[in-house]
Amino acid sequence: MQEPDFTLSAGPTMSSLRVQQAQGRPMIFDYDPVFQERFRETERLVGELFRTDKDVVLMQGEAVLGIEAAARGVVRPGMKCLNLVSGVYAKWFGDWLRSYEAEVVELEVPYDEALDPAAVGAELERHADFELVALVHSETPSGIENPLAGIAPLAKRAGALVFADVVSAVGGTDVRTDDWGVDICVGGPQKCLAGPPGMSLVVVGDEAWAAIETNPNAPRGSFLSLLDWRETWIEGGRVKFPYTPSVSDVNGVHAAVEECLEEGLDSVIARHAVAASACREGVKAMGLELWPRSNDYAANCVTAIRCPEGVEVKSTLSHIRERYGVMLSGGYGELAERLFRIGHMGPAARSLFPHVAVSALGRGLLDLGVDLDVGAGADATLQVLSDSRETVAA
Amino acid sequence: MQEPDFTLSAGPTMSSLRVQQAQGRPMIFDYDPVFQERFRETERLVGELFRTDKDVVLMQGEAVLGIEAAARGVVRPGMKCLNLVSGVYAKWFGDWLRSYEAEVVELEVPYDEALDPAAVGAELERHADFELVALVHSETPSGIENPLAGIAPLAKRAGALVFADVVSAVGGTDVRTDDWGVDICVGGPQKCLAGPPGMSLVVVGDEAWAAIETNPNAPRGSFLSLLDWRETWIEGGRVKFPYTPSVSDVNGVHAAVEECLEEGLDSVIARHAVAASACREGVKAMGLELWPRSNDYAANCVTAIRCPEGVEVKSTLSHIRERYGVMLSGGYGELAERLFRIGHMGPAARSLFPHVAVSALGRGLLDLGVDLDVGAGADATLQVLSDSRETVAA
Amino acid sequence: MQEPDFTLSAGPTMSSLRVQQAQGRPMIFDYDPVFQERFRETERLVGELFRTDKDVVLMQGEAVLGIEAAARGVVRPGMKCLNLVSGVYAKWFGDWLRSYEAEVVELEVPYDEALDPAAVGAELERHADFELVALVHSETPSGIENPLAGIAPLAKRAGALVFADVVSAVGGTDVRTDDWGVDICVGGPQKCLAGPPGMSLVVVGDEAWAAIETNPNAPRGSFLSLLDWRETWIEGGRVKFPYTPSVSDVNGVHAAVEECLEEGLDSVIARHAVAASACREGVKAMGLELWPRSNDYAANCVTAIRCPEGVEVKSTLSHIRERYGVMLSGGYGELAERLFRIGHMGPAARSLFPHVAVSALGRGLLDLGVDLDVGAGADATLQVLSDSRETVAA
Amino acid sequence: MQEPDFTLSAGPTMSSLRVQQAQGRPMIFDYDPVFQERFRETERLVGELFRTDKDVVLMQGEAVLGIEAAARGVVRPGMKCLNLVSGVYAKWFGDWLRSYEAEVVELEVPYDEALDPAAVGAELERHADFELVALVHSETPSGIENPLAGIAPLAKRAGALVFADVVSAVGGTDVRTDDWGVDICVGGPQKCLAGPPGMSLVVVGDEAWAAIETNPNAPRGSFLSLLDWRETWIEGGRVKFPYTPSVSDVNGVHAAVEECLEEGLDSVIARHAVAASACREGVKAMGLELWPRSNDYAANCVTAIRCPEGVEVKSTLSHIRERYGVMLSGGYGELAERLFRIGHMGPAARSLFPHVAVSALGRGLLDLGVDLDVGAGADATLQVLSDSRETVAA
Repeated sequence: MQEPDFTLSAGPTMSSLRVQQAQGRPMIFDYDPVFQERFRETERLVGELFRTDKDVVLMQGEAVLGIEAAARGVVRPGMKCLNLVSGVYAKWFGDWLRSYEAEVVELEVPYDEALDPAAVGAELERHADFELVALVHSETPSGIENPLAGIAPLAKRAGALVFADVVSAVGGTDVRTDDWGVDICVGGPQKCLAGPPGMSLVVVGDEAWAAIETNPNAPRGSFLSLLDWRETWIEGGRVKFPYTPSVSDVNGVHAAVEECLEEGLDSVIARHAVAASACREGVKAMGLELWPRSNDYAANCVTAIRCPEGVEVKSTLSHIRERYGVMLSGGYGELAERLFRIGHMGPAARSLFPHVAVSALGRGLLDLGVDLDVGAGADATLQVLSDSRETVAA
Repeated sequence: MQEPDFTLSAGPTMSSLRVQQAQGRPMIFDYDPVFQERFRETERLVGELFRTDKDVVLMQGEAVLGIEAAARGVVRPGMKCLNLVSGVYAKWFGDWLRSYEAEVVELEVPYDEALDPAAVGAELERHADFELVALVHSETPSGIENPLAGIAPLAKRAGALVFADVVSAVGGTDVRTDDWGVDICVGGPQKCLAGPPGMSLVVVGDEAWAAIETNPNAPRGSFLSLLDWRETWIEGGRVKFPYTPSVSDVNGVHAAVEECLEEGLDSVIARHAVAASACREGVKAMGLELWPRSNDYAANCVTAIRCPEGVEVKSTLSHIRERYGVMLSGGYGELAERLFRIGHMGPAARSLFPHVAVSALGRGLLDLGVDLDVGAGADATLQVLSDSRETVAA
Repeated sequence: MQEPDFTLSAGPTMSSLRVQQAQGRPMIFDYDPVFQERFRETERLVGELFRTDKDVVLMQGEAVLGIEAAARGVVRPGMKCLNLVSGVYAKWFGDWLRSYEAEVVELEVPYDEALDPAAVGAELERHADFELVALVHSETPSGIENPLAGIAPLAKRAGALVFADVVSAVGGTDVRTDDWGVDICVGGPQKCLAGPPGMSLVVVGDEAWAAIETNPNAPRGSFLSLLDWRETWIEGGRVKFPYTPSVSDVNGVHAAVEECLEEGLDSVIARHAVAASACREGVKAMGLELWPRSNDYAANCVTAIRCPEGVEVKSTLSHIRERYGVMLSGGYGELAERLFRIGHMGPAARSLFPHVAVSALGRGLLDLGVDLDVGAGADATLQVLSDSRETVAA
Repeated sequence: MQEPDFTLSAGPTMSSLRVQQAQGRPMIFDYDPVFQERFRETERLVGELFRTDKDVVLMQGEAVLGIEAAARGVVRPGMKCLNLVSGVYAKWFGDWLRSYEAEVVELEVPYDEALDPAAVGAELERHADFELVALVHSETPSGIENPLAGIAPLAKRAGALVFADVVSAVGGTDVRTDDWGVDICVGGPQKCLAGPPGMSLVVVGDEAWAAIETNPNAPRGSFLSLLDWRETWIEGGRVKFPYTPSVSDVNGVHAAVEECLEEGLDSVIARHAVAASACREGVKAMGLELWPRSNDYAANCVTAIRCPEGVEVKSTLSHIRERYGVMLSGGYGELAERLFRIGHMGPAARSLFPHVAVSALGRGLLDLGVDLDVGAGADATLQVLSDSRETVAA
């Protein structure tokens, strides 16, 4: 079997030529001056991407590592945490909090809805003593985007540390770390940045560092340790790594973030929004049903579609992949068998890629007996792209 | 401006990853034993592709160079030639023949039709003393495929040398050099093979060599000389080049031909036929008119579509390129302003690429005010791909 | 500053074209069938490389992660461990064992010597109740290779689990996991395999799995968890990842290991041995002193050289890098300022790369006032390569 | 057999990563606006490289094509030409001139010497009616550099067109087309520019164009036609190609020239001079004899060394290639069996590459029984590099 002609999945997603060429550069020594400067520059670019002056820590390992490192770092036994849940990832985060012996309060909404700032505000008032508020900005497993801009300042004002999983948000929707008062957050390069999945982009502010320092359980002398990075790399003048970075992934992330900032973050975000809208309109016009109950909180990175009656997610995806060379995603976790997901991230949020994804899904389902109007879907997708003016192929 | 998201033009066309990686290998010396063996192997693979035991000469320069070299080689002043014309390239070939002072008879059909073997047979009988019969297998400028299988044997039987331009045929439709009695032919790597445009794939049989040897005007000591290649390279035991080959283009052609043969030439041809059919059905269903008067001779490599009233070819192509990132072709030569052309060659004859091309053309024209049913086009294109069974994404 | 012309460091080291091209492939989804099959095939190839039938677990993160994961997995509080120390890495491993509350006995030799199987045997007899024996096969920081073949069977026979760090051994010297009775070991792709530094190659046998399962402190639900990989990936039929692998690094490791096995593991090892010998002879002939007291245990991967009086390691390395474009390594950990290290791993153990390294070090020191005979070094290095017959540029 | 570890030949020579990545970009349509702009920009960069305001014509085909095109263009029957000969290429050029029925006077020096401006001046006075003076700036086959700066102005002042082959000069030594009065000249991208061998960089001034226009034999409607490029491309506003350029080679030449100009042409030339000097000193110190009788005219691109008694060029080169993975060159044309040639062009004129070449040649000859002091050669080579200050690894 050949590699897919189109990777339009929920990530890792198709990369740009620039990222590919960066990843394919000859390997160099991590103590080479050129590599060290590139690492430092990547930190600066990531800071710009997150619109933050806080410390950027580039840990090796997909974003789950960064989230685990951050959570183990700040959360000490007995810490009172508000975990805001609108999807699979936030739910799992709660399990972690409990396993670290935090005292966890959970505010949960159905997974096809987003968090409501007003409800969060009410919960913050009810307790008044939360030390940490955690949320997922963009729930990749279900394509739901939570209003981080509305919630983070409330939590901050209430005196809590704000912990945000922005893995699939950053580079595709607005993430204003400092303006919104986020203390610690983790982005992933393999989603909207369309880079490699081997790195965690962690932002840590002073209050988060203070929490980590005073946490007896914070990892030390461990691959999961933010403190190791602070002591060896940051405080040592950024010339010595606690652990060897993955050279090609650093090259790839550097290229991905630089490319994003050169295009202009606002343009990039606008392009993701158009691609998402095109997918949603196409999918609905064909006769399928979106997972998010409202476009207001449908994510920019991924469009989640309810699997129609009479077909299975997994075999449909296989059919589409084998028959048309297009790789889409199913649901994830407990939603695995209920959803299809189209990724429109990075280069896949350009040109006619959303149209390819919608068409592949529609025609694949039609092949399997689902009654759909694929042509109407094509018309609707293309209409959004046509209306969008200049943004999809600049 | 960024590079296009989709290159679905009449060639040079989008290359496969394997070809790109071959082209990007470190440069090596042309006398390096590895390069020399790769060059010899490329000759063998090209022979297999052309289904021939004749000599293969890999000249540097896009296929026009090979055609000029072959024509200057075999055509001497006063040689009686039958030039078969169904398009722009064959017409230009006649000009060349006349400039070499050949005695030229031309049999011409309208450019939206193909040559008819019966008519060619009649012409061969009428004269009975043609020394050379020349034709273009696949007219890239208008997407017309001539029945080389039907014509070449007639010409051969009539005692003429058979000269075939198979530039955009080879790798996309059946080319049986030896079975059909073709004496000298030239293929291009940048069309259905989706390789680089820097090389001419020339096949020369014994009778063609004999004609060249006895032609006082055949180039000697010239970049256009087939004889230089024969004397220095072939007769010298294939260890010494008369001219330095383009290392990366040899790498690219080697990869492209090997990839084609590994997939299986018959499968590759079937895939091109499906892609061409999908484009034709899509374009017609949208409401556009094909250039070829019959599907019987519509080419496998390129689909030519008449430009509807009220729009210009050039500005429409620019709109589609700028707005959607898709690069299509217009007409060529005297047909430049009358046609759109969609290339479906190499990897562009896989997966949903034909659908992308049809949609881009349709939506682009709709944007400019042409009344079209893009959704119907999408349905028709996808229907052909769906019906094709296993061929488009194997 | 440009990237170095030569990376002849202690790793990450220069990669082959094949590895670079693998790393630079377009990113694909980790659930793509092609990626999943490549992942499984990488596991099989790594098993072959380690000459083992035990489970191979490919964890994301440089080898330190794998070592931490393995150690946290098997070591429970109170476990009686024999830590064999001949260098920096083994010393640090002892710190880890103690931090996991093991009961640690250490057998240490000077860092310029190797472990002695007889002494280990005596220690094993003295205690008779060790549950784990740990050692580093090849101490990259000092270029010392320990006799794993002699020690592991003794430890195994004594009833202990054998834990081996083979990070810089595998692919450059013989590692016979199953023959020698190693229960759990970790290799690194960025040393002799000359792949990317983003993955840990972990081999886990049944007895090691048993220890992990019964260890209440073994990581679970963590990026450091071997059990997560076992439950989700291995026991789930190798179709579902607990964490997203780094796609490009998997591609790179696949290419690196496949290339090594295609060349032939024995040939590869022989080539590393020749390169190491060439470096040692060259360095000595110039008038420098090797760090290992005997060639018997000088490593195949890295040659460590004592820094002569009157110069500093760091500034010498900078001079060589800036002046000649060659990147070498200094010492590491407590040896940082005492040693130079030349890496001769992967492609750097081919051709004249050892000669480049020796010459760069010699000429660089000469520039800084050290009295050396660089020409004599060149003669000696080249003599070894000349005597080696067929192995360095096959 | 693997590809060579080091390509240090007379060209095509080792390319930089940037050139490789440019060559490996996805193929695009030659009418794509991005490609057309890149083509135009390449012309501008080449003009800068040649320090000229004349027209730049980028023809497809290795430099021999450009020379043939230029010669056929300007030389008409009966034209009185002075052909200046100090090597194989100039000699062959005379054969071409005669085959075009020019009236040729030849001024020849031994091939291990350079042309003397005074002698040329005397010859120009003796005849006073030369219409064309032709010379080779740098004779790659023998590593001789002629004083184009001294000769061209004399010829220009004498009223002749000045025709210069600067194939292996440009990018490695000073070429001041306009200052020196060169009317038409041809450079090659595969020598000091270390680009691909598939393109001719032709510079044509007004007087040369005038000569071509009035030459009835100048190629027209031919792949060899400069006039076709002028009429279709230049006069058509640089939007339409007469022949399809080799996309990847244009990308490669663009990258190579841009990289050269970014480093700074003077620095690049200085680097080539140092590398050449290092090779010469190394080779002499080993006990070998240079071909050029004086360093004053030894070329910057290639060092030619006399083959010592008792060994054959060809088998020595094979031994070095097979045994050490290093590809050097022999002589060329009638000098084939008398010389070794080391290329130090592009990246091969950086870092320790000259040292690798000298060592490989020396050790290879020593293996075959030639009595040489390789260590002394290494010392001498490195001494030059050490003395050169900043130029070899900037």
